[in-house]
Amino acid sequence: MTGSTSYAYLGPEGTFTETALLQVPGADAARRVPASTVGSALDAVRSGAVDAAMVPIENSVEGGVSATLDAIAVGDPLRIVREELVPITFVLVARAGTALADVRRIATHGHAWAQCRAWADKHVRDAEYIPSTSTAAAAAGLADGEDSFDAAICSPLLADRLGLTVLAEDIGDVSDAVTRFVLVGGPDALTPRTGADKTTLVIPLPVDHPGALMQILDQFAARGVNLSRIESRPTGQFLGDYFFSVDADGHIEDARVADALKGLHRISPGLRFLGSYARADRRSSPIGRHTSDAAFDAAGAWLGGILRGAGTGRSEGTQAQ
Amino acid sequence: MTGSTSYAYLGPEGTFTETALLQVPGADAARRVPASTVGSALDAVRSGAVDAAMVPIENSVEGGVSATLDAIAVGDPLRIVREELVPITFVLVARAGTALADVRRIATHGHAWAQCRAWADKHVRDAEYIPSTSTAAAAAGLADGEDSFDAAICSPLLADRLGLTVLAEDIGDVSDAVTRFVLVGGPDALTPRTGADKTTLVIPLPVDHPGALMQILDQFAARGVNLSRIESRPTGQFLGDYFFSVDADGHIEDARVADALKGLHRISPGLRFLGSYARADRRSSPIGRHTSDAAFDAAGAWLGGILRGAGTGRSEGTQAQ
Amino acid sequence: MTGSTSYAYLGPEGTFTETALLQVPGADAARRVPASTVGSALDAVRSGAVDAAMVPIENSVEGGVSATLDAIAVGDPLRIVREELVPITFVLVARAGTALADVRRIATHGHAWAQCRAWADKHVRDAEYIPSTSTAAAAAGLADGEDSFDAAICSPLLADRLGLTVLAEDIGDVSDAVTRFVLVGGPDALTPRTGADKTTLVIPLPVDHPGALMQILDQFAARGVNLSRIESRPTGQFLGDYFFSVDADGHIEDARVADALKGLHRISPGLRFLGSYARADRRSSPIGRHTSDAAFDAAGAWLGGILRGAGTGRSEGTQAQ
Amino acid sequence: MTGSTSYAYLGPEGTFTETALLQVPGADAARRVPASTVGSALDAVRSGAVDAAMVPIENSVEGGVSATLDAIAVGDPLRIVREELVPITFVLVARAGTALADVRRIATHGHAWAQCRAWADKHVRDAEYIPSTSTAAAAAGLADGEDSFDAAICSPLLADRLGLTVLAEDIGDVSDAVTRFVLVGGPDALTPRTGADKTTLVIPLPVDHPGALMQILDQFAARGVNLSRIESRPTGQFLGDYFFSVDADGHIEDARVADALKGLHRISPGLRFLGSYARADRRSSPIGRHTSDAAFDAAGAWLGGILRGAGTGRSEGTQAQ
Repeated sequence: MTGSTSYAYLGPEGTFTETALLQVPGADAARRVPASTVGSALDAVRSGAVDAAMVPIENSVEGGVSATLDAIAVGDPLRIVREELVPITFVLVARAGTALADVRRIATHGHAWAQCRAWADKHVRDAEYIPSTSTAAAAAGLADGEDSFDAAICSPLLADRLGLTVLAEDIGDVSDAVTRFVLVGGPDALTPRTGADKTTLVIPLPVDHPGALMQILDQFAARGVNLSRIESRPTGQFLGDYFFSVDADGHIEDARVADALKGLHRISPGLRFLGSYARADRRSSPIGRHTSDAAFDAAGAWLGGILRGAGTGRSEGTQAQ
Repeated sequence: MTGSTSYAYLGPEGTFTETALLQVPGADAARRVPASTVGSALDAVRSGAVDAAMVPIENSVEGGVSATLDAIAVGDPLRIVREELVPITFVLVARAGTALADVRRIATHGHAWAQCRAWADKHVRDAEYIPSTSTAAAAAGLADGEDSFDAAICSPLLADRLGLTVLAEDIGDVSDAVTRFVLVGGPDALTPRTGADKTTLVIPLPVDHPGALMQILDQFAARGVNLSRIESRPTGQFLGDYFFSVDADGHIEDARVADALKGLHRISPGLRFLGSYARADRRSSPIGRHTSDAAFDAAGAWLGGILRGAGTGRSEGTQAQ
Repeated sequence: MTGSTSYAYLGPEGTFTETALLQVPGADAARRVPASTVGSALDAVRSGAVDAAMVPIENSVEGGVSATLDAIAVGDPLRIVREELVPITFVLVARAGTALADVRRIATHGHAWAQCRAWADKHVRDAEYIPSTSTAAAAAGLADGEDSFDAAICSPLLADRLGLTVLAEDIGDVSDAVTRFVLVGGPDALTPRTGADKTTLVIPLPVDHPGALMQILDQFAARGVNLSRIESRPTGQFLGDYFFSVDADGHIEDARVADALKGLHRISPGLRFLGSYARADRRSSPIGRHTSDAAFDAAGAWLGGILRGAGTGRSEGTQAQ
Repeated sequence: MTGSTSYAYLGPEGTFTETALLQVPGADAARRVPASTVGSALDAVRSGAVDAAMVPIENSVEGGVSATLDAIAVGDPLRIVREELVPITFVLVARAGTALADVRRIATHGHAWAQCRAWADKHVRDAEYIPSTSTAAAAAGLADGEDSFDAAICSPLLADRLGLTVLAEDIGDVSDAVTRFVLVGGPDALTPRTGADKTTLVIPLPVDHPGALMQILDQFAARGVNLSRIESRPTGQFLGDYFFSVDADGHIEDARVADALKGLHRISPGLRFLGSYARADRRSSPIGRHTSDAAFDAAGAWLGGILRGAGTGRSEGTQAQ
């Protein structure tokens, strides 16, 4: 995607989500439209108003997560085309002239507050927490002269961009915290295979009996496809009806993934393919000898030979031995 | 538990969590202590300050969920002893004299706001959203004369208790929404078997290879134990290391569940048993002939006979046929 | 196959194997060549001397069985094209003038003798058993005036054909005994699908570890393919190395069987396809909704749509609902 | 077992089965009773006439095999207490004065003849085959002056014992051929664990559907128990109804085997335990960390702690880490 591409993202400006978007090559020169919710960011893609939307999908400090998955899973189809990891670092900021000892009321998003509680209990024990719709909104309020609080917790980038004073750095409880974001495109988007890919699926559970889930997972295991995430999610219609959201290692163009998808489709025809895309960590998983593209090709050629009557029923692999 | 029992719950007063707690027999006469976070409610149990804590665990409009599971899973052991389902119904409230047409700023918790967006877009399109730490805090602020907003979204109970005027009822997007809460007790709590029970476990994934998850799930399937929820959760130490949180049908005193637990312990000795407790929906799942307590007893007796040298290697079940 | 077709069979004339061959339409008018061993009957197919060979494969009273499977499994490829079931009924025969009370020495094949032992113990307790290379050889010897025995056990047909006197009928221990025979053709023979078919395979066990056999069987189970026979057989090279011989329900042109074969080929490339052919009992097994040809076609079409970029990732099955 | 023990074996004297029996410590000084069939040898154990019986069970040149398994599996219970491997070496013998060039008619058991065909085709192409009830009977007939044949194929031992002239040695097609025999004792016999054991079972298939066999095999795989032999066998009542005969690595006193047996008993209560006994090849299979006796003990202790209310639900294995 080039500079002429347009993006929505979970705003406002200065969120970690915008940081994630700016990691996409060319996005700094692209049109970037903040959206107030994950749902409205995705709807902007569905309506064609933008080409793609960056939204948080795991461990986010600014919301989303399950909601994001659900929002992609229902409604008109969309495809995940990319994932980004953003290191989460929080700073405590104030207007110029405010010292740490002066801080009485701290605004930020609830999730960010939760992640800085240990630091706050130790260094600003008496400060009151003021909820905010986002870390960016809190910081912006401070910059705008909002007077219902005197400090905010936000990202270092935002502190810098708004010219706020940093009272304390790296105040999150978990150092090295990382949040995962996904870039979501239109229903036909299909990103090329890189060799270190991930495929996201939504799979309705066909029948709720012992072994139904096993039957689904077996479709992956039988092809040597590893799952890096699995979640059962209520369908929302009534408690007890579930679908599964999974991330599988590999790309739909890998024979083993394609074969697993066909097997899943037979069992659960309501299956949704949410995209194959490069892993943000670029880590490729080893592929077993029996599940390589070559093994699939050889098996297909062997079977084809028999069905065409040209084969002998003896594997060529064997003859070669 | 009687009136002399004490409970913590995710507060403040008037939340859906308190509603859940009040559903526990005797809790209306018990000491009830609101806590500001799920973590602090659980810590009150760990320290012995209270006997048990009610916290949200699924679909909550007031937070928790994954965080609750994580908070139970780590730190000193706790046991879930009960679950409660609470119908989630939202009302829009204001001080006496405020009409729907006057509403400009609406306060509530972010999750509640998300669940009432469709109604709000239609009926109070121009109203601004003011984030609040809980639905109860929003309503209480209104009752206390707080003037930064003129309406709040909260539960019907709270509207009634605070004497606020209801401007609109049942404004949630999903009718029949239900949230699940769990009552968490001390590390040795073990509730009796009712015949319609649920067992919650946390299972570290021993090795991250295709089939490792299958190996775990097979321990359930091989004993005919159904799973009603499964989630992979990052351990937090580094991305890519997972544990699984599952709800299984049945009680640890059911032979098939006990046998599955022993199998899981062999594979993943770091396994945590978070409790067996009555299902809130009282729905019992059918038990296969091969996985009944009687089948386990017969198998044990047969094997014992052989090992004692008294057996003949021929099943008594067969002889009886 | 027509009257101009030629057949080998495990002889000599008058064996149950010839009876099986005569059940093949047109075989009564065809050239029929008795062979002294299963191996030589099969070699006659391999060399092109005959078009096909009828040999016993299960429960035979005249040998073969495991040996037959092994003989087909090794050496140049062959294909099973048909199976026949023959009711096994034994008669005790003698030359005209011999009464039951006169019988002192009874000739027959060892397997036939084993199957008539209960009758013999009761009715000809003092008679001596004289081993013979086949039931037919025993009866023929009697007809030819051989004097080292005075009675033989053979098939009713042979008694009739040779004009021998029947001293006792239906003397086998198991009434309703049935033996299975297979007609074996050249390496490219492929019989058409009838809807009630069977597929025979030889599968080398890739690695001898717990679960290796499971991995193979899972390829069938994952496609809903039932196995009606399974045998591990030592490879003959050294004890402890095995291959599996299996009969699976269905025809290689059934999508579920073809898919299972491809999966097996990936795991065990030395796999041998020994043929798909009509079941002698004409019993068709029910096919699950998820493993029908239609389900495989739909899955393939769905995946193809995605890979061509024309698909939307939403199953058409779902859209139709 | 001592010299006062009595044994039956598949006779007559001088068979490979007697060789197998003589490999049992003390058997050379014990009473040894030849039996004419496998069934009568086993019945001698059932009636108490002897303490145990040696019978062939795999690849035998003198019969038995499947028949042996079936004979142990039905009727009053018996237990396999030992297995023996005997190298199979054939010699061609004649009376003194007969040269190889003089041989016209060769007597032996059909299976032995089958195994020496290649040699015979090359060296005594024109000789006629005379079937015999056993290799020993053939050799004995020769020694007794029987004149319907002039040579026999038998074991080296028998040639030596009967003082016959060896015309050719090691004439079997397969060098290093080995046959397996089992010693069968009474219904309560249970041999001690050696660390390199084998367990033999007969398992009726509960329901004939895809996956029923998988369900059985999974009981082994889930406990890391390897199978070294598996055979489906028709029950004899009607074609299509099966039981499975399997050899599993390990002893019933190994926790993983005992646990698998209990699981199998639940699924198929008609299961028969045919004995745990030392492997003839003394080869022990590696035991996985998760399936050791220690792992089973730890799992049982952990579960017991929870059920007694003494446990904390946290694995001790974890606490120790």
